[in-house]
Amino acid sequence: MTQRKSFGSDNHAGVHPAIIQAIVDANPGHAVSYGADERTEQVTAALREVFGADEAFLVPNGSGANVLGLSLLLRRHEGVICAETAHIYTDECGAPERLVGTKLLAVPSSDGKLTPEGIAVYLSGRGDDHRSQPGVVAVTQSTELGTCYSLAELRKIADFCRASDLRVYLDGARLANAAAGLDCSLAELAECADVLSFGGTKNGAMGAEALIVMRPGLAADVPYLRKQQAQHTSKMRFVAAQFGALLDDDLWHANAAHANAMARRLAEGVADLGGVDIVHPVQANAVFARLDPRHVAALRQEWYFHVWDEQNSVVRWMAAFDTTEADVDTFLEGIRSAVSR
Amino acid sequence: MTQRKSFGSDNHAGVHPAIIQAIVDANPGHAVSYGADERTEQVTAALREVFGADEAFLVPNGSGANVLGLSLLLRRHEGVICAETAHIYTDECGAPERLVGTKLLAVPSSDGKLTPEGIAVYLSGRGDDHRSQPGVVAVTQSTELGTCYSLAELRKIADFCRASDLRVYLDGARLANAAAGLDCSLAELAECADVLSFGGTKNGAMGAEALIVMRPGLAADVPYLRKQQAQHTSKMRFVAAQFGALLDDDLWHANAAHANAMARRLAEGVADLGGVDIVHPVQANAVFARLDPRHVAALRQEWYFHVWDEQNSVVRWMAAFDTTEADVDTFLEGIRSAVSR
Amino acid sequence: MTQRKSFGSDNHAGVHPAIIQAIVDANPGHAVSYGADERTEQVTAALREVFGADEAFLVPNGSGANVLGLSLLLRRHEGVICAETAHIYTDECGAPERLVGTKLLAVPSSDGKLTPEGIAVYLSGRGDDHRSQPGVVAVTQSTELGTCYSLAELRKIADFCRASDLRVYLDGARLANAAAGLDCSLAELAECADVLSFGGTKNGAMGAEALIVMRPGLAADVPYLRKQQAQHTSKMRFVAAQFGALLDDDLWHANAAHANAMARRLAEGVADLGGVDIVHPVQANAVFARLDPRHVAALRQEWYFHVWDEQNSVVRWMAAFDTTEADVDTFLEGIRSAVSR
Amino acid sequence: MTQRKSFGSDNHAGVHPAIIQAIVDANPGHAVSYGADERTEQVTAALREVFGADEAFLVPNGSGANVLGLSLLLRRHEGVICAETAHIYTDECGAPERLVGTKLLAVPSSDGKLTPEGIAVYLSGRGDDHRSQPGVVAVTQSTELGTCYSLAELRKIADFCRASDLRVYLDGARLANAAAGLDCSLAELAECADVLSFGGTKNGAMGAEALIVMRPGLAADVPYLRKQQAQHTSKMRFVAAQFGALLDDDLWHANAAHANAMARRLAEGVADLGGVDIVHPVQANAVFARLDPRHVAALRQEWYFHVWDEQNSVVRWMAAFDTTEADVDTFLEGIRSAVSR
Repeated sequence: MTQRKSFGSDNHAGVHPAIIQAIVDANPGHAVSYGADERTEQVTAALREVFGADEAFLVPNGSGANVLGLSLLLRRHEGVICAETAHIYTDECGAPERLVGTKLLAVPSSDGKLTPEGIAVYLSGRGDDHRSQPGVVAVTQSTELGTCYSLAELRKIADFCRASDLRVYLDGARLANAAAGLDCSLAELAECADVLSFGGTKNGAMGAEALIVMRPGLAADVPYLRKQQAQHTSKMRFVAAQFGALLDDDLWHANAAHANAMARRLAEGVADLGGVDIVHPVQANAVFARLDPRHVAALRQEWYFHVWDEQNSVVRWMAAFDTTEADVDTFLEGIRSAVSR
Repeated sequence: MTQRKSFGSDNHAGVHPAIIQAIVDANPGHAVSYGADERTEQVTAALREVFGADEAFLVPNGSGANVLGLSLLLRRHEGVICAETAHIYTDECGAPERLVGTKLLAVPSSDGKLTPEGIAVYLSGRGDDHRSQPGVVAVTQSTELGTCYSLAELRKIADFCRASDLRVYLDGARLANAAAGLDCSLAELAECADVLSFGGTKNGAMGAEALIVMRPGLAADVPYLRKQQAQHTSKMRFVAAQFGALLDDDLWHANAAHANAMARRLAEGVADLGGVDIVHPVQANAVFARLDPRHVAALRQEWYFHVWDEQNSVVRWMAAFDTTEADVDTFLEGIRSAVSR
Repeated sequence: MTQRKSFGSDNHAGVHPAIIQAIVDANPGHAVSYGADERTEQVTAALREVFGADEAFLVPNGSGANVLGLSLLLRRHEGVICAETAHIYTDECGAPERLVGTKLLAVPSSDGKLTPEGIAVYLSGRGDDHRSQPGVVAVTQSTELGTCYSLAELRKIADFCRASDLRVYLDGARLANAAAGLDCSLAELAECADVLSFGGTKNGAMGAEALIVMRPGLAADVPYLRKQQAQHTSKMRFVAAQFGALLDDDLWHANAAHANAMARRLAEGVADLGGVDIVHPVQANAVFARLDPRHVAALRQEWYFHVWDEQNSVVRWMAAFDTTEADVDTFLEGIRSAVSR
Repeated sequence: MTQRKSFGSDNHAGVHPAIIQAIVDANPGHAVSYGADERTEQVTAALREVFGADEAFLVPNGSGANVLGLSLLLRRHEGVICAETAHIYTDECGAPERLVGTKLLAVPSSDGKLTPEGIAVYLSGRGDDHRSQPGVVAVTQSTELGTCYSLAELRKIADFCRASDLRVYLDGARLANAAAGLDCSLAELAECADVLSFGGTKNGAMGAEALIVMRPGLAADVPYLRKQQAQHTSKMRFVAAQFGALLDDDLWHANAAHANAMARRLAEGVADLGGVDIVHPVQANAVFARLDPRHVAALRQEWYFHVWDEQNSVVRWMAAFDTTEADVDTFLEGIRSAVSR
């Protein structure tokens, strides 16, 4: 495919060699399907332990994990408070509305994060049967803007939610990047949540996400909901193998830490460059930068990345587990050359 | 996992070596995500050609393909006529009802097949706004009972449906087995359908299904519906690689023909055995047999397979692409031993 | 409209004079909308008392009451066991599937009733995540075939359901007819149910149904679900007025008892008539009879009624609160004349 | 109920005497149910003529009309662009999301109206399969803020939508007030729309809304969708009777014009009052005013009305068809007394 590395998305990377090898190793012989195999049992047990979770389930798809998690936490008439930048709000073609039937209650956010104050706005409709009743708060960690909630920020939201009879869903498609960025454990991040997803795909897997159920009493419904929502994989051993490899020797952490470091290297490389403004703190593996539209156009002729906000000429550059220092440096040269025209 | 081959499901097999290799080969470098990569374009083009289709799309999940296909063909108030044995009716935990909001209109069937007469029963409610209006007829090929519609039977249904303003969805989770069993092309099987699925997973892939759109004018909505239904894979190149390998040198056909042959070998092996009755013609890769419950119990102590119909003590034995003659023969010995106790 | 009374449906009748008067009397002045008015509070309090219920709510529509009641009792992945003759199964154009997203699990029934044995069939799928999990049993009282469950039959079902972790929804669109037919109280009928509807419309109201919540802990969600399902009436006082009139001096009972008596008179009138077979016990306000198709055709030229089962030439004749003895006798003459041709 | 007239909502009024009379007059005798009666046919024919419509249908509920209309116009993956103040967005407890499965795409609006510029923002996501695709634009006329789109404004939106492959749904819960306020015909207002609702309930009916289908080719699905969405009334003649009375001698216009005049009288009465600011043009039957919170509290001790925006201390006062000049004047005295404390 493309010769050069893409800075378009961590999804553009392939699969980490150890994960490919784990898939190959999982292949010989027959195994019971739909997750009743030993490998799946071992991996979900390991996930339970890593997260201090009640239960863990594997699904192939990130939107699928989000929809499954939300449907587990919501009563039928309840809505989901989320940042206006949330993936579930903008990037799933209305999956939560269609598949869960819920209303998303968006909160303006300049940094991709929610605050208790932003959440509280929707509590004024409580008890009014004309209003979608807030039931779940969905946070994303790391956020769609490459920022991370600090543990203190997460705790503040969790405390607020518990005091307000709101459950917390955490979209952890890039949870590994947050854990690496904050230098904390996955369990510490999960503490704030009733249910969360733990993404493997953007962190070197082929297609593997986990649904982590923290709050007791919820897990029994998951197998049925997962099947009903068409997120149940028959040859589950291959999803399990991917997570097995990610957990071995904390490969998930190494991958994420490396991607984060490459994003930082990129951000630092443009820091003193006239004509490039970093618009969000680089706390995970994404760099958001403002460039002159002409420079954006020039750069895109040779490099693949997304224009995030056309109006303000903000672009997103993402590093992946396999982005090298040399990749970043070559890209930095390209940027320098583009902005100097 | 299990040392012995399972006769429980074609899902218990792993991945064909050529397909694993194709996955490994697809890994190096970056590729645009969500199916905009070259490999996906090549494979969907190849599928279009093989099927004589208007368009082809890749999804990771068989229930996902079914729901996507049905939602493409149904108006909101319409129902789906299917055999009472259909996977969508009995084995998807209500996914079509939940995700599409449609009513399934089941037709009794002793051999897993629909007939124009069975379909016609539901036409009597046409025009009555209290009745779910039949809009789609869903056939499964090969059926859940291991039988195949002949091309003539399919054509009869297709003709009836066209004359009756009904669209045809074909659940082709085991379409390869049908094509091999009937010694016909995939295109001949697809002719009867407006939309169909073409299953890779049960035929040696890891997790790869295709949605084949035959009727012009429908395909434009698929990308959105696929994303909305959480069936859109980010690292699509790996799904494409699986189908690429299946299409190369007609591996799909070789795998299916082999599995079918192993099922026939098994059926022939028990044919003259007292105490084992084959209850459906063996036209694909499944054998349905009636045994004394005591014999079933004895056999299950050493072999994995499903009791299909507890009341009538009917079991299902399935062969996979990697079932060997030796596997069948060992199993036959086990059966002989069990029924002779 | 039609001069002659219709035997087509109890919905063909108008509104009982006392109910029309109650509507007129409720009109003067302003009242808070959406059920926060005094009249609604009084009527729902009265309903709570009559039923020994936890809470009562008013809705304008019978299908709306059913969908609301089912959504209150079902977890997202659960299905509803019902008789294949149930209104929710055959006559709501797929409303439960679309609005609740649930699968209906139909049980064959020759008399419109469920039995523990029929229900039990679906319990075999318990714990299999591919199967829609039975969560609710929906009984109809009186049934769509004009029969009534005896109190003993209801209790048997309720006991079975409680022992099997199934909740009971009772579709009481004609509950009044059952209470009158069985000579029991509404509370006795409601005892078997977790949630039930109590129909006013078919019993002399204009458009008024009640949702009666028996099981504690469910009622808090109803206001939101009712609004979300577009079953919340702004000028609620007029729905309340209808139920107020129905409850006054047990008008509901008088109306139902009269309609039942007229159905019995009709059934008795044809009992000794050659060529007319009563096919179900007449236990409420409907008579199901088998006639020669030629006689059906002749009779329908002058009278309005439904052919229930074309294949078996079974027709349905319904009496309403305002059907008079003279109406029945005239109709009987018509029948006699038709069958003697 | 309350002695004094409420200024809380036009829903707090009862039923216009002519409409009550029409209901009473419709009562004698039997009539075919579910809208197959003569009266319904006459009234829907009259509505077709008044609106220049392709077809007209009666429903009991305003949210029900909205959901039905939207479901008629939307493909499954499409979203609805609406003002952030729209009833469907804020006041239906998530009915469109739950019952239609659609995403609402809200546009900020200070006056309750949409503009082509506001709509256009969502067109940037066209063709991106991660984004809910805009399919329908929902306008409300008169708006939730008591303003009216001019015919020129409506035409501009309609032209923009047609050029942009967007369909227009018009929520006409208070369409009569708009027609009276703009001194135009219902047909002129309907011209911009593909489908619209025409509200009777807020204009003196008991519970009667019409769904007006302007665009040819859509109407055939309505009967099924209406039943499926539990909006099909069995004793339809009484809904028809209400609309019949509203259409007779243009009672709808007289009622609306009167309510509008009373709102204007109220607005004019406070115009020169210190401490009361009218915050939106009074173009229909609602007055939005900003008062000191202390004055609001004082006034609410004796009068019923809604605080619309607590933060900015904005209240809504609504006039109904039966609000008299004396009612307004008494209320004005109350306001004067409250603000002078």
